[in-house]
Amino acid sequence: MKKIAIIGLGLIGGSIAKALKKSNEAGNYFIAAYDLPQIISQALAEGVADKKLETVEDAATYDIIFLALPLSESIDCFDKLAGILHGGTILSDVCGVKGIFEHKWNHLESSGIYMGGHPMTGKERGGYENSDPLLFENSVYILSSRSKGRPESHELLGIIKCLGARAVFLDPFVHDKVVANVSHIPQLLAVALVNSAFENNSENINNLDFAAGGFRDMTRIASSSFSIWKDVISTNKSEILYTLEKLQYQIGLLKSSILLDDQKKLEESFLKSAQRRDSIPKTNKGFINPVYDLFVYVKDEPGVISKISTLLFSNGINIKDIELLKIREGSGGTFRLSFESLKDADSASGILKNAGYEFQ
Amino acid sequence: MKKIAIIGLGLIGGSIAKALKKSNEAGNYFIAAYDLPQIISQALAEGVADKKLETVEDAATYDIIFLALPLSESIDCFDKLAGILHGGTILSDVCGVKGIFEHKWNHLESSGIYMGGHPMTGKERGGYENSDPLLFENSVYILSSRSKGRPESHELLGIIKCLGARAVFLDPFVHDKVVANVSHIPQLLAVALVNSAFENNSENINNLDFAAGGFRDMTRIASSSFSIWKDVISTNKSEILYTLEKLQYQIGLLKSSILLDDQKKLEESFLKSAQRRDSIPKTNKGFINPVYDLFVYVKDEPGVISKISTLLFSNGINIKDIELLKIREGSGGTFRLSFESLKDADSASGILKNAGYEFQ
Repeated sequence: MKKIAIIGLGLIGGSIAKALKKSNEAGNYFIAAYDLPQIISQALAEGVADKKLETVEDAATYDIIFLALPLSESIDCFDKLAGILHGGTILSDVCGVKGIFEHKWNHLESSGIYMGGHPMTGKERGGYENSDPLLFENSVYILSSRSKGRPESHELLGIIKCLGARAVFLDPFVHDKVVANVSHIPQLLAVALVNSAFENNSENINNLDFAAGGFRDMTRIASSSFSIWKDVISTNKSEILYTLEKLQYQIGLLKSSILLDDQKKLEESFLKSAQRRDSIPKTNKGFINPVYDLFVYVKDEPGVISKISTLLFSNGINIKDIELLKIREGSGGTFRLSFESLKDADSASGILKNAGYEFQ
Repeated sequence: MKKIAIIGLGLIGGSIAKALKKSNEAGNYFIAAYDLPQIISQALAEGVADKKLETVEDAATYDIIFLALPLSESIDCFDKLAGILHGGTILSDVCGVKGIFEHKWNHLESSGIYMGGHPMTGKERGGYENSDPLLFENSVYILSSRSKGRPESHELLGIIKCLGARAVFLDPFVHDKVVANVSHIPQLLAVALVNSAFENNSENINNLDFAAGGFRDMTRIASSSFSIWKDVISTNKSEILYTLEKLQYQIGLLKSSILLDDQKKLEESFLKSAQRRDSIPKTNKGFINPVYDLFVYVKDEPGVISKISTLLFSNGINIKDIELLKIREGSGGTFRLSFESLKDADSASGILKNAGYEFQ
């Protein structure tokens, strides 16, 4: 029997507990949890947790600890627990920034093991009430490669497998560089672009009144709430600042090519970006705003949207959004189908497979 | 009988000719056209043009001239024609940059009138073979406000009305500022963002391998072809350079807030951008990649996608793409439906209206 402590029964912590308790190996896991009294009472009543942890420090004797609080609170708990872990205890967290934990770990003495994680899944709404045993199904669970190969890491890998996720090892500092590039900088850039374009000029015309497709696509994430980004930005500060400089350098390159009428250099920038952008795997689910998506490959034939949606609707499944990701014109394409819940996506997957549709 | 000269029978020029010839007022328009011999032969055979223009200069005696060639060729023709226009001849163009023509006009003597235009419509593919009498239907046709109110401008307004478009007056230099902000800078930024994120780092991991939803949205236009952008960038150079500086300033603001841990200032930037972005009219069609879209408001009820697509498919209309633009959760939302052609969109509009759907 493995003793698991979960600090924070929100969307991620609650989903870990629910997934373990619904798995075939439920009998192998004893789960203690720390959260507000009413959340713990509900989890105990629902059989999602076996025991209430009175203090964060009580977790130090468990086999595996998941820190599943918001970023700054997870850091506080890490500070309380890291130095007092019992021999062999694995401390993990589920935060979107990894270097800060690793850095702290490298500067302390502990009998335990730290192995940070970043599950690449989520929902629009958080909290225990939205937690879901199927949240991790088919998602990628990034694990710090620093403890890769250590025998204790197999315990954590076993749990991740039990959640239905696929573990991918990544160096924590490389992780923070990657998320700065593909998630944090795009967010800051969307904010900068909207604020830069917003302007009432001489004729009292607001540029944004003429903004359409491309501009809207680029700035969709500009509406994100600051409360989510505050801690992410401050804990990944140095990577973000470095990546902003890289971006400023690229903007400067374009600016000087334009200023000097250097068409050859400008063309080079355009060609490179087109090649690089086209090389992004189209079915990546990634770090940001994960949704319950299916990627279905279909022949490009009239009425295909109608056929698919009618097939699913007649089975009681409602599609929230359909997007055609054009791949090869004339011959076929991949549709992204988004669903309200993972359950819907799961059922839809089965129905479409039976009907002969291919998935990507 | 009004004598119209169209220089360039491509997508826009061809569509102008076809629309006028299909209109109720076809009898009022005599159309002469200048293009490659085989295009002119086809247009004459199809009754789309009445006469072949032997030289660009021959257009100088007509009532209205449309320059509908690619940007740099339109500028060349403008140089040939502007100074030799007969008294009362209106010279117009359909290019996406307006200041350069206005600037040239202000520095020459002419008996004619120049009134630049920018029809906010288009198709993925150009050329006479894709021109379409319905191309302008329900689209916005931007006209230089410099000649607004001049009696001759009514001739041009009459033609635009005949095309089915809605004329909107805008100062040509304000126009170029607006397109720099909402179209040209987003394009350059997408290029810079992809090139900045592309990097094989220490562990030979490419950041782009982890790029997903938000990043893909932001860089969709990075794959645009340089040949389209080359002339646009060089002719709108000063507005683009100025707007790039504004953007660099905004990025600098964010960078210094992050560097100085100034959470208050950072929050202010996020809040402003969210408010400003949310104020963009959701149904704007705008300058970039116009598509045949309908915006249908529907109650948020299960199966609505299936109902709409089945209704249209049973009427022989295929939807190319559906996107749910969420407006009010629980109560209803607006769907964007995209179609292959304006004809499909038009028929779909009638069918959905008859079925009681509301449009936005």
